Amino acid sequence: MTTAAETTARLLITCPDRPGIVSAVTTFLFRHGANITELDQHSTDPSGGRFFMRLEFQTPGLDLADKALEQAFAEDVARRFDMEWHISHAARRPRMAVLVSRHDHALLELLWRWNTGELGVDLAVVISNHPDLRDEVERFGVRFEQVRFTADTQAEAEAGMQAILQDAADFVVLARFMRILSPGFVAQWPARIINIHHSFLPAFVGADPYRQAYERGVKLIGATAHYVTADLDQGPIIEQDTARVSHRFETVDLKQLGRDLERQVLARAVRWHVEDRIIVDGNKTVVFA
Amino acid sequence: MTTAAETTARLLITCPDRPGIVSAVTTFLFRHGANITELDQHSTDPSGGRFFMRLEFQTPGLDLADKALEQAFAEDVARRFDMEWHISHAARRPRMAVLVSRHDHALLELLWRWNTGELGVDLAVVISNHPDLRDEVERFGVRFEQVRFTADTQAEAEAGMQAILQDAADFVVLARFMRILSPGFVAQWPARIINIHHSFLPAFVGADPYRQAYERGVKLIGATAHYVTADLDQGPIIEQDTARVSHRFETVDLKQLGRDLERQVLARAVRWHVEDRIIVDGNKTVVFA
Amino acid sequence: MTTAAETTARLLITCPDRPGIVSAVTTFLFRHGANITELDQHSTDPSGGRFFMRLEFQTPGLDLADKALEQAFAEDVARRFDMEWHISHAARRPRMAVLVSRHDHALLELLWRWNTGELGVDLAVVISNHPDLRDEVERFGVRFEQVRFTADTQAEAEAGMQAILQDAADFVVLARFMRILSPGFVAQWPARIINIHHSFLPAFVGADPYRQAYERGVKLIGATAHYVTADLDQGPIIEQDTARVSHRFETVDLKQLGRDLERQVLARAVRWHVEDRIIVDGNKTVVFA
Amino acid sequence: MTTAAETTARLLITCPDRPGIVSAVTTFLFRHGANITELDQHSTDPSGGRFFMRLEFQTPGLDLADKALEQAFAEDVARRFDMEWHISHAARRPRMAVLVSRHDHALLELLWRWNTGELGVDLAVVISNHPDLRDEVERFGVRFEQVRFTADTQAEAEAGMQAILQDAADFVVLARFMRILSPGFVAQWPARIINIHHSFLPAFVGADPYRQAYERGVKLIGATAHYVTADLDQGPIIEQDTARVSHRFETVDLKQLGRDLERQVLARAVRWHVEDRIIVDGNKTVVFA
Repeated sequence: MTTAAETTARLLITCPDRPGIVSAVTTFLFRHGANITELDQHSTDPSGGRFFMRLEFQTPGLDLADKALEQAFAEDVARRFDMEWHISHAARRPRMAVLVSRHDHALLELLWRWNTGELGVDLAVVISNHPDLRDEVERFGVRFEQVRFTADTQAEAEAGMQAILQDAADFVVLARFMRILSPGFVAQWPARIINIHHSFLPAFVGADPYRQAYERGVKLIGATAHYVTADLDQGPIIEQDTARVSHRFETVDLKQLGRDLERQVLARAVRWHVEDRIIVDGNKTVVFA
Repeated sequence: MTTAAETTARLLITCPDRPGIVSAVTTFLFRHGANITELDQHSTDPSGGRFFMRLEFQTPGLDLADKALEQAFAEDVARRFDMEWHISHAARRPRMAVLVSRHDHALLELLWRWNTGELGVDLAVVISNHPDLRDEVERFGVRFEQVRFTADTQAEAEAGMQAILQDAADFVVLARFMRILSPGFVAQWPARIINIHHSFLPAFVGADPYRQAYERGVKLIGATAHYVTADLDQGPIIEQDTARVSHRFETVDLKQLGRDLERQVLARAVRWHVEDRIIVDGNKTVVFA
Repeated sequence: MTTAAETTARLLITCPDRPGIVSAVTTFLFRHGANITELDQHSTDPSGGRFFMRLEFQTPGLDLADKALEQAFAEDVARRFDMEWHISHAARRPRMAVLVSRHDHALLELLWRWNTGELGVDLAVVISNHPDLRDEVERFGVRFEQVRFTADTQAEAEAGMQAILQDAADFVVLARFMRILSPGFVAQWPARIINIHHSFLPAFVGADPYRQAYERGVKLIGATAHYVTADLDQGPIIEQDTARVSHRFETVDLKQLGRDLERQVLARAVRWHVEDRIIVDGNKTVVFA
Repeated sequence: MTTAAETTARLLITCPDRPGIVSAVTTFLFRHGANITELDQHSTDPSGGRFFMRLEFQTPGLDLADKALEQAFAEDVARRFDMEWHISHAARRPRMAVLVSRHDHALLELLWRWNTGELGVDLAVVISNHPDLRDEVERFGVRFEQVRFTADTQAEAEAGMQAILQDAADFVVLARFMRILSPGFVAQWPARIINIHHSFLPAFVGADPYRQAYERGVKLIGATAHYVTADLDQGPIIEQDTARVSHRFETVDLKQLGRDLERQVLARAVRWHVEDRIIVDGNKTVVFA
């Protein structure tokens, strides 16, 4: 499962399902000297459905350089099957930006895992609408930027964030960022903003889900990582988990236990995103974990 | 934890919280020869909140007969603390009725657990709006009654059910009963109808939750046992659980896995009800499990 | 995920890993008109490791009959890669035998799931060393055979069982069968006897694991489904699960909760076996679930 | 459940079970003005077993100072029932020492939870047999001491640790400390050293449990927090948990997932210890969580 080898490349494919795809792709790779080490596929329906595939292959034996291989794949395979596809290389680590407000638990979890190297990511910048976490971030040697957000300055703030992000980051993680991003901002990062919501969606959308959970008297609380779309809390779900609670849990206890859930769920979602394990399918995800 | 001893009695109490309750109750029981073998308590707020307590005690050393003990408790303790309370005896097994439509999995689970004796309940009758499960039920030696339900005959059908239930059952389990009971019927069985809903409430209320779950692309499915109130799917939650799914699960797969969840969750809820472990607190439950 | 279609075939492969396997297999299938609908693979090490693959394909477009396809595969692909392999057809349901003693919970779980059709199996016979469960089995319309087992008659009893099984069953499930089978008997059913052990192996091998768990004071109990080998409780593990317990659980409570675990774990293992999702790799399993 | 109030006191009791204990204790507290806000009890057997009780009470209304209350309890109640008991006060936070080697994940988890205040503990000192984690610890403002350990200097090293610990700490946490402590050292800290073992004990005692788990092919890995006794990996278990793995997990993957388990399990165990929720009963624990 350990896929961090510098020589690993990943190919993700989506296309209409029809016979012959796997044969065509694997034969192409074999002929060009790629050694396939992982292969997952999924079809929503073998007759007229969508087909999804993820391959990992080792690159040392390739007979073509990266660009040439991509061009050959486009011409020899992708065109014929009407594929959306891309190839990524584990050696070129994606650049992550984190947006955060005042809660530090999700941010710290990502900082730790980035620091151990287990996330396979570069941490480009942490942006916050508050100054509180600057020291915490900077002592990891990570860039911290504060962007002031008010109801009146949302457009300006988002423009400031975009200026920071556009050349620095490949994707964005909302690690308990308490401002709602505008559809315009979100549209610049399609399937590239990951949010952690502190409930088992679609239960308890909107504000203060732990208070909502307390009032409803649920026996499990949850956390959900999803891609952000223009519809609040409605984007494609990447990962979820739940934990058992009881009548003894007050809202503060739910929050405390929930922090553990949020950290774990967000860390898994980020890792899968970084390892190109997620394909968005309409408002759902295919996760080859 | 094994509480099925014939000599076990259970005392459930709800009252305004104030100092001295535990002392008064346990001293009363001790003086009358009861040996307390389990005690759970809960307070929503020590200052001005509600207090809940469940005790199990052994009856062989009692100096009063049941009725006399209850009268003494009412006068010596309950009145002073403004208590709602009742005492039940494990030896007097509650009588359960099951309402079912065509799905047999939840019913079979209850039949099997009843048959092993682990539920501590008498199974009075199974009522269905379909004839399909008659043989299955009758070969366990259990009474089966069919009650025809149509949009036009709801009132009549419910009257027929009530006629069967009122002298036969202490509580009712909806084991995937697909008709919505009227508020009038429900009002006759307050906190005595347990339903199994095939989702993690409050997600996916209403019809066909597995289809809803499929369409939303959740990564866990759930099941919820709750008391039935006049508001559909809104009653106090007794127990919930979840199970992991993936993009590979079609609706039929969700249903199949969900059956396992429903069986487990419903069985736990029924057992806790039978053992007097549940106290309803507004629209929530306190479960001393 | 629903793979029960009558037109589904499954190909399982084990061989030394080297480049080109996937390409060769999928191209062979494509050229002969098979439509691949699921593909899983695993390699213990891309350099010099073992390679495992499972494919599901649809047969209606095949240009060869079953035997001819197998022969072509052997000659065109399998020989070249030194493969162990076999093809099974969902339409030819495997025949299951169940061995049981007095506990009925694991047996009943299998009977129910067989009865709903969700196991995809034919239930050939139930064999027991006790007469107790005859009625329970026969009312499902299933053949029941009693075989007397004593310390002195083990060889004879096993010969009797083998006489029943050899023409009737493709694999055997020990659903809490309390006799230890001899190495000689086991050798006749390699990777074709599934046992449910009532602990999280390798914790608590041997007799009475719930008592062992009680005495050790564990906070979780477990269940393990594994293939039976000559070494007691040491065979390749197929599936495991755990459930939370506390100091309140006496041995009888552990047994009761454990029954639920055993039922679920065994049912999953049997289903995966039936769907050809398990490949034995030395003393481990690869499970393409 | 939130019990961190400065006014909260906790009473833990162990004694032979017999009627009248709860009444005597709660009446004593009530008469002296204590308001009981939590009460848990457990009996191994109402006839001749051991009885365990934990109470939380609020102290503002007490009619006696701490020492006088303890003396009165000893004379009026404890002597009569032959109790082992003690009272602790949430306002007097216990002092924790952490022993660590080179793995930082368990230490960081404790540092973070200590830093948020959720552990309710003072962090007195971190001791390591390696210098690696000094900076990490000191930037939290926490004292760090290195103690050199070799096979020849074990006695000296333990004497050095004891000199540091005896006046500084109330209990010790082994957060992946890779040296085995001598029985003599352990005897100085009975039920006051908590270890996190990286397996589901009693499976995989001894060295390198993740490698053992890999070789056995288990489908779940575990972690166990336990009190340290003279017998390695045999002390009373406080808490355990498991996580699902598959054939795709190599040893390095098991370690990575296992770190998450270890962090969660150890954090729960430490919190319960700090909140006086654990009573040792022979080689088991009663945990009133």
